[in-house]
Amino acid sequence: MDWTGYLAASLTTCSFVPQAWLTFRTRDVRGISLGMYGVFALGVALWLAYGLLLRAWPLVLANGITLALAIAILAMKLRYRSGPAAR
Amino acid sequence: MDWTGYLAASLTTCSFVPQAWLTFRTRDVRGISLGMYGVFALGVALWLAYGLLLRAWPLVLANGITLALAIAILAMKLRYRSGPAAR
Repeated sequence: MDWTGYLAASLTTCSFVPQAWLTFRTRDVRGISLGMYGVFALGVALWLAYGLLLRAWPLVLANGITLALAIAILAMKLRYRSGPAAR
Repeated sequence: MDWTGYLAASLTTCSFVPQAWLTFRTRDVRGISLGMYGVFALGVALWLAYGLLLRAWPLVLANGITLALAIAILAMKLRYRSGPAAR
């Protein structure tokens, strides 16, 4: 049963790597939602805090990596958007 | 301590709503990574399975909603991409 959770955590964490790489390469952030990455990064930071409170290290590790990737995508969204209109 | 987890789950789940809405409105999927949403949807499906195995209903509920949103974004990515090149 545990392997299902570890595999799930690995996949949801690693999934942000191709998005970060695509955004880094193309700088095309128009289709990326600022609202999503803002709320998502906040949520993942809370998951990290929850893992620390529980001393649940797999939760801390997975959410630490996901938070770093989400913040990278959020930073690129803010850096590369051309117009003043936030989407 | 539990409220941290519930708030974290609510935020990470709800964060996909603005992305799904932006993509639905603009049909601009060029900056969205197919790899991300493919791997992410698979990972969330496994989180859902893990929740069902543990009979952990908050996990089932949050991941059920997230899965529906991720599949919607993935479907729009596949539907609206203009060129043959998958990104």
